[in-house]
Order: sequence, then C-alpha cells, then structure tokens
Amino acid sequence: MPYVTVKLLEGRTEEQKKNLVEKVTDAVVETTGASKEKVVVFIEDMSKNHYAVGGKRLSDQ
Amino acid sequence: MPYVTVKLLEGRTEEQKKNLVEKVTDAVVETTGASKEKVVVFIEDMSKNHYAVGGKRLSDQ
Amino acid sequence: MPYVTVKLLEGRTEEQKKNLVEKVTDAVVETTGASKEKVVVFIEDMSKNHYAVGGKRLSDQ
Amino acid sequence: MPYVTVKLLEGRTEEQKKNLVEKVTDAVVETTGASKEKVVVFIEDMSKNHYAVGGKRLSDQ
Amino acid sequence: MPYVTVKLLEGRTEEQKKNLVEKVTDAVVETTGASKEKVVVFIEDMSKNHYAVGGKRLSDQ
Amino acid sequence: MPYVTVKLLEGRTEEQKKNLVEKVTDAVVETTGASKEKVVVFIEDMSKNHYAVGGKRLSDQ
Repeated sequence: MPYVTVKLLEGRTEEQKKNLVEKVTDAVVETTGASKEKVVVFIEDMSKNHYAVGGKRLSDQ
Repeated sequence: MPYVTVKLLEGRTEEQKKNLVEKVTDAVVETTGASKEKVVVFIEDMSKNHYAVGGKRLSDQ
Repeated sequence: MPYVTVKLLEGRTEEQKKNLVEKVTDAVVETTGASKEKVVVFIEDMSKNHYAVGGKRLSDQ
Repeated sequence: MPYVTVKLLEGRTEEQKKNLVEKVTDAVVETTGASKEKVVVFIEDMSKNHYAVGGKRLSDQ
Repeated sequence: MPYVTVKLLEGRTEEQKKNLVEKVTDAVVETTGASKEKVVVFIEDMSKNHYAVGGKRLSDQ
Repeated sequence: MPYVTVKLLEGRTEEQKKNLVEKVTDAVVETTGASKEKVVVFIEDMSKNHYAVGGKRLSDQ
C-alpha cells in the first residue's frame, strides 16, 4: 500500500514502462511517506478501439 | 470527466463498439450536463474464462 | 453483463443520477444487444480534492 | 451483487481459475448472506511487465 | 498479489466483513497456491442510489 | 490520458495529496512523453476496515 494503477494508450516501450513505475513509486514515497517496498504499481494498456473521448474512439478518428 | 468504463463479454463488432461509445456519451451529456468533449469512455472486453456468475465461469457452462 | 461504471464529480442531483442510469442502460442495450435486465450501472462520485488534471487538483484551482 | 474482481499474475491453469471462482463465491455467500446466483466474479490476469512492487517490475527482477 | 476487490451493497456488519476477507483469502490461497500473507482484499461499499440493475437504481425501486 | 488511480489508506493531509498528484503527474510526463495537461489523477482513500492483508483487516489488527 499505496496501490497505483496507470492506464495509458498501448505503444510505450519496455524502457518507458520500467522508468514509469520507478519514478511514480519515488513520487508516491516522497509525498506520502509510504515505504518504497510497499508501493505497488499496475500498468493497464488501452487499445485505440477501446478508448473514446467526446463520443469518438481514437480508432475512429 | 465524467469517465465511463463499460465491461462486457468479448465478441462485439467494431461497429457495435463505435455506436456504444457514441450513445453512452450522449446519454451522459444529456443527463448530467457534462460537455461532450470532456466525456471519456473505456471499453473492457471480458473473456468467458474470466467471468463467472453463481460460482461458474461462462467457459465452464 | 455488461457492467458500466460512471465516475463523475460529486454534486449531481438524485434526479440526474436516476436519469443517468436509465439513459446509459438504454444506450448499452440499443448498441450491444444486451438484455436490459442484465445491464448493471455503478456510479462513483469524486470529490474535488481527489481529482486532478495536469497536476492540479480541482480543489487547488 | 456482490461483485468480486480477482487480479493475479498470469499463468494459473484453467482448473485453478475454475476452482478459484467457485471457492471465492462460496466464501462470499457464507459470510455475507448473498444468494449464490447473484455473486459475480471477474478474473484479471496481470503480466510481469505490468506489475511492480517497490519500484521494480517483476519482469525487471 | 493476488489482489481481490469485493464490491457489495452497504449494510454488512463489521463481523461479516471480518469473516468475508478471511474466507475469501483462504479461498484464493487454496485454489491459486498464493501465500496467505501476500493476498490483499479491498472492500468497496455501494449505496443504493449508486447501483442500478436493468436501468433502475435500487433506491428508486 | 494517461489516467492514474492512487489507492491509499485514509489519513493523508491535503498538503500531501496536493504534492502527490503534482509529483505523480511529473513522473508520468517525464517517462511516457504524455503532455502534462492530459494527465489525470484520481485519489481513492481506503478505510482500515475495508483493507486486508493476509486475511486480516487493518482494523482487526
């Protein structure tokens, strides 16, 4: 605890995801006082046909 | 904002998903007063082996 | 099934929420072919101090 | 209702998942008084590159 | 890991919730081989005005 | 997009939450290339009676 879920458009590289969890974890530790080994991060990739803004899917734009 | 997540059994066509986000967005705008371009919709497909009702997965029925 | 979660800023009236679930359910039925009695809608209210865009919480704007 | 989401590392067998939803449903019925046919269970598989503890993804360990 | 979220109608007693997390944890350990101290359970209470089936909120029935 | 949900035990101060969304947003921008104004952060507070590890709620420890 804390538990962080990052939902983002698919296509980021493994290097980006590696850095993402590292930096997000540091940000959570720095600001909440949680201990680092307790911070959990989940990444959820979204595909363009499953993500819509203003009534339009990115895959339909 | 608002953010709508629709979780449904996999198998719908792209046309159905296109219409789904459109109509759901309209429904949210019409009833909450949110502006259309701010409404976000996520679709989450479920597979039959990851969805159970009454203790039984659809894949085991 | 399908399961719809609507996450929105707190403050809508009960009447708006009543209409919201009704119209969203109709939109899902119309576009996915799901039967009406199977459609589930969850509403999740967000408070301004728990919702941030661009690094700023609405409560800090 | 109730709705249970089980998020776990990918790799469990279909037999394990079958038993998981069955036993979790029984546990919910036994302790909450919900009727069995109303209990819904979702399984969400996580891949090692999308799950991190202590700032490190399991895929980077 | 695994992470279990139980979403249920508000109103259960503390005793029921205590037993719920215990039995659900046991069910997960028994069927997935996860170690008990790693199993995390979140409970999410739903109010009747934020939960609808078939287009109607429980608070409107 | 991206969308970040931070689930943590209730009790953090408003100042901590303000800094949390700021630093988490910066971390996401820095590592994924997303533009800052597009990053959304949700905070979800957990109460001790709704959060269990190893079969025991924090409120029962």
